[in-house]
Amino acid sequence: MPSKISAHLRDRVMGAEAAAALIAPGSTVGLSGFTGSGYPKAVPLALAARIEAEHALGNPFRVRVWTGASTGPELDGALAKADGIEFRLPYNSDPIAREKINRGEMDYFDMHLSQVAPMAWQGFLGPLDTAVIEIVGIRDDGSLIPSSSVGNNKTWLDRADQIILEVNRWQNPALEGMHDIYYGTALPPHRVPIPLVRPDDRIGEAYYRVDPAKIVAIVETDAPDRNLPFAAPDAAAEAIAGHLIEFFRHEVARGRLPASLLPLQSGVGNIANAVLSGLVAGPFEAMTSYTEVIQDGMLDLLDSGKLLMASATAFSLSPEAAARLNADLRAYRDKMILRPQEISNHPELIRRLGCLAMNGLIEADIYGNVNSTHIMGSRIQNGIGGSGDFARNAYVSIFMTPSTAKGGAISAIVPQASHVDHISQDVQVLVTEQGLADLRGLSPKQRAQLIIENCAHPDYRPALADYYRRARLGSYGQQTPMLPGEALSWHQRFLETGTMRM
Amino acid sequence: MPSKISAHLRDRVMGAEAAAALIAPGSTVGLSGFTGSGYPKAVPLALAARIEAEHALGNPFRVRVWTGASTGPELDGALAKADGIEFRLPYNSDPIAREKINRGEMDYFDMHLSQVAPMAWQGFLGPLDTAVIEIVGIRDDGSLIPSSSVGNNKTWLDRADQIILEVNRWQNPALEGMHDIYYGTALPPHRVPIPLVRPDDRIGEAYYRVDPAKIVAIVETDAPDRNLPFAAPDAAAEAIAGHLIEFFRHEVARGRLPASLLPLQSGVGNIANAVLSGLVAGPFEAMTSYTEVIQDGMLDLLDSGKLLMASATAFSLSPEAAARLNADLRAYRDKMILRPQEISNHPELIRRLGCLAMNGLIEADIYGNVNSTHIMGSRIQNGIGGSGDFARNAYVSIFMTPSTAKGGAISAIVPQASHVDHISQDVQVLVTEQGLADLRGLSPKQRAQLIIENCAHPDYRPALADYYRRARLGSYGQQTPMLPGEALSWHQRFLETGTMRM
Repeated sequence: MPSKISAHLRDRVMGAEAAAALIAPGSTVGLSGFTGSGYPKAVPLALAARIEAEHALGNPFRVRVWTGASTGPELDGALAKADGIEFRLPYNSDPIAREKINRGEMDYFDMHLSQVAPMAWQGFLGPLDTAVIEIVGIRDDGSLIPSSSVGNNKTWLDRADQIILEVNRWQNPALEGMHDIYYGTALPPHRVPIPLVRPDDRIGEAYYRVDPAKIVAIVETDAPDRNLPFAAPDAAAEAIAGHLIEFFRHEVARGRLPASLLPLQSGVGNIANAVLSGLVAGPFEAMTSYTEVIQDGMLDLLDSGKLLMASATAFSLSPEAAARLNADLRAYRDKMILRPQEISNHPELIRRLGCLAMNGLIEADIYGNVNSTHIMGSRIQNGIGGSGDFARNAYVSIFMTPSTAKGGAISAIVPQASHVDHISQDVQVLVTEQGLADLRGLSPKQRAQLIIENCAHPDYRPALADYYRRARLGSYGQQTPMLPGEALSWHQRFLETGTMRM
Repeated sequence: MPSKISAHLRDRVMGAEAAAALIAPGSTVGLSGFTGSGYPKAVPLALAARIEAEHALGNPFRVRVWTGASTGPELDGALAKADGIEFRLPYNSDPIAREKINRGEMDYFDMHLSQVAPMAWQGFLGPLDTAVIEIVGIRDDGSLIPSSSVGNNKTWLDRADQIILEVNRWQNPALEGMHDIYYGTALPPHRVPIPLVRPDDRIGEAYYRVDPAKIVAIVETDAPDRNLPFAAPDAAAEAIAGHLIEFFRHEVARGRLPASLLPLQSGVGNIANAVLSGLVAGPFEAMTSYTEVIQDGMLDLLDSGKLLMASATAFSLSPEAAARLNADLRAYRDKMILRPQEISNHPELIRRLGCLAMNGLIEADIYGNVNSTHIMGSRIQNGIGGSGDFARNAYVSIFMTPSTAKGGAISAIVPQASHVDHISQDVQVLVTEQGLADLRGLSPKQRAQLIIENCAHPDYRPALADYYRRARLGSYGQQTPMLPGEALSWHQRFLETGTMRM
């Protein structure tokens, strides 16, 4: 490390408590972290302790929290528990924070993940006071080695008034060189084409640039990412995967998809893992992935040789898969690229590459409007995340779900979605364990028949068909037949009786 | 015209009836036309007559109709009146066709306009049997001079098995050279960046390419575009324009918009014209427009010198404005570019340019979810058109509406949108004659307060505030408070009593 930078930086090494003391009440903090990878592990905990101490003294202390997406319990959990978050964006899956949000005690701005960095730059979100970023190391030239997620770190480092770095010894040094940090973005009218045409293109640098004068603290840590246990696919997930792979096979046979498919985007969870496992055994070779996160199933697919490479913004692995990756990272590294989320999720790139988007949902209505976020229309589960970036711009936009939830008390197919995240135009294929509905090119009424017949659970199919039949008779208009007095009655019944069943 | 091509083409000149006889029952016809400009005027009428004659004989005869967007009465009106349309995409504003759709007698697939051409190419919409395209002329090299709209013509000409051309003498020959037809699109994995970085960039050719062997008929016409009368701005439109221009002024003062703003996208109608008129008198210079259609107000803005140029896919002018344009087309031509709608509406380009999107709506709910298409959730008005392309990718996405309709019987602000075309994330600024709500960066509850206070009509404000207050008390979750048993009750009341008032 050159002497000037290193001397300045050595001065800045301190404990997490001292670093957290640099964060002012009411200020905005941009933290690293995306689905439990690469988030800072020490400073948020110390900040939460400080907030609790201030609250005990009767002093108000809350901050505005910006991240990449979800993080870990040491960040969202600890700060929410301390009642330290006034406002949160762009995505949350922490249960304590979720409870606070759903009790109306925390403002939550649920955003398209591709838009976070450009909108922060655009300025209307207000200034970013402090960035707290986990990295793997600081290089001799002052540039930073990114950690296990990229998220919005490039933008937080660029925009923040002051920067706190967490250098996490736990992270594998072999991460170095895996990242591709694109520095070609701009505000309009200065934007230019993003020169990426294949998922494996590298268009940026392997490191973050940073102004060393803005670094006010460096905290050394040695703490693992939050790697959630692997949820093994159940029978429903296996059935969904089977329907979907059959669909891909059919599209290839019809000449509508290349034999190697198109870049795969896949959400997380056991259905996604079932699809990826299904592809390991499937007929498609030389596949690629352009997605948000690299999950367990993606490693299997890379190991099989059928997936050539995966581009994402973060890892989202089980402890076992994380160990597998870490043991062999130098080999995996050439098949993986981690990018800023404004690039992994960029509409320009998703449409150009023609991604096959596969996302989960909470409920879909008979016309294929999808609710990805709000249980019974009001209670947020996680957030829209990147699903809107991918669904609207995909070559084929697929949504997958078991046909029921809560032991059958909730139908995933309802007369009308209680909240809409994905409009019917952006929902082209709907799959449940019951079957697949290829909705492309169909009018709303054609969609309704197919969704009720192919996707709804048999226990709910007659009631859906009955609603649809009566809507066909009594609706104000017949483009998208609906009965406003009854459209949300299934949700009301669930709230009153605990089940959507009549 | 070289002898070989011209000899072949001379053979193909025939009357509209003979050309219409080449269109088979049950086939798919891709026609030119976008908002009443550049649609074929003779062959659809002749086809409608043929269909009526066949129906009189008891023979079934309907076709599938694809266009750019809305067309004229000689196309959608005549074919719908003849009960000749089995399936229609991607946009309709014809009253006869609208009635058929809302009676459930015609299947209508309401699409994002940017997606029509790529999806037709993708193949799942089925084959395109016949293209019927209005042009201004055929050049010596066989290429075609585009007419007053471009729409999907490039794709229809490329994809159709057979082509019928209407050469319309009424169109101004000075249109030649105004168009920019981009031939760089592809299916994935062969897509590349679209090399447009400013609204005035020309990236293609001034003519359509066509395989002369596919031309089966050439019909000569001399018929005007459907130019609708200019709807003069009323007091509400003037007030909306005033609020919006004040917002732009504020954003420029805060340094969040350049002094020349960013490329304007504007819907049609009297509110849009009021905004454009307001900009004539406003403080912004050297503006540009990247939009779907060039309407009356855009001509005024060009005349004022404050708008440097306008890029669109079609004209949508009043008879007076069309006469003005035609009288001086050579002068206007250098300030106008007409492009394929897949380019005028491309998400890649809208996001790159950072368009300021201004669109109308039917209703918005208190969280700012917007319904642009379905009255009372079921009866389609026109369609989503390009509003989704622009709203999701805009630098600032603005929706505008009078706060009430039907003499006050309908509130444009409702507890819950009865149909959603634009999710709250894509609705950043909402404007009515009552005021403007800048919703950027706000959580749903923060949005609700602002929309009720700033945008709702005073007659409906107390009832909205009361619903919201009770939802805050009784909702299942508090991220987006809602009461499923009551959320759509305003629509139900309108259906039962003719008014949303209690």
